[in-house]
Amino acid sequence: MLGKLNHIAIAVADLQSASDLYRLAFDATVSAPQALPDHGVTTVFVELQNTKLELLEPLGNDSPIAKFLEKNPAGGIHHYCIEVDDIQAAIKTAGANNLRILGNGKPKIGAHGKPVVFVHPKDMLGCLVEFEET
Amino acid sequence: MLGKLNHIAIAVADLQSASDLYRLAFDATVSAPQALPDHGVTTVFVELQNTKLELLEPLGNDSPIAKFLEKNPAGGIHHYCIEVDDIQAAIKTAGANNLRILGNGKPKIGAHGKPVVFVHPKDMLGCLVEFEET
Repeated sequence: MLGKLNHIAIAVADLQSASDLYRLAFDATVSAPQALPDHGVTTVFVELQNTKLELLEPLGNDSPIAKFLEKNPAGGIHHYCIEVDDIQAAIKTAGANNLRILGNGKPKIGAHGKPVVFVHPKDMLGCLVEFEET
Repeated sequence: MLGKLNHIAIAVADLQSASDLYRLAFDATVSAPQALPDHGVTTVFVELQNTKLELLEPLGNDSPIAKFLEKNPAGGIHHYCIEVDDIQAAIKTAGANNLRILGNGKPKIGAHGKPVVFVHPKDMLGCLVEFEET
């Protein structure tokens, strides 16, 4: 059921300096910033050879990563995202194993325009896990 | 300089139940547990299509993940590991960019028998990052 690791999402307070760390220090390819007002974040992607890091900076007054950054002002891993080929099957699997889907339990359109759900970190070894249909 | 994401390491209190989550609920391939007394952990790998999750359970009285689990009893992402082709070059790059290598600044032989260094999380967007020479 589990496909590729799509990304590791890292919340950062300052997207420019965070991008510079990977671009300048490590010579990584870093995408241009993309503001996603509906998701309350501005993002860039850092390319690795087999996956990517997604750096997230809060955008607007109600960013879903604002509280995380209050607790972790230096930044930190916010979630990781695993691709699945069928989001409804993933939701069924979660339900059958008592893994709580956040929100109303239904997929939303994620930051990349694809259906996603997030599973409660307490049910996933303390990690916020996103499933994205590909 | 940066190669593949080798793994995301997740600290867990109970390796058996953590393995079961991925093996039974998500039908993932999970390796047999490997005790690594020199590293103070017992590990399993969960295979994803392009990388893996490494689940770490404390082993012995001086486990490097014991404190992390005290703070995060439900578990959590401990570090992620990026492959590099030259660990000495990675150390030089870190030094040139004021990124602190943990320990004595020299590579150690990591859990997979290859030279590794860890970079201070405060210098890496709040994330403990391992570089492993491949």
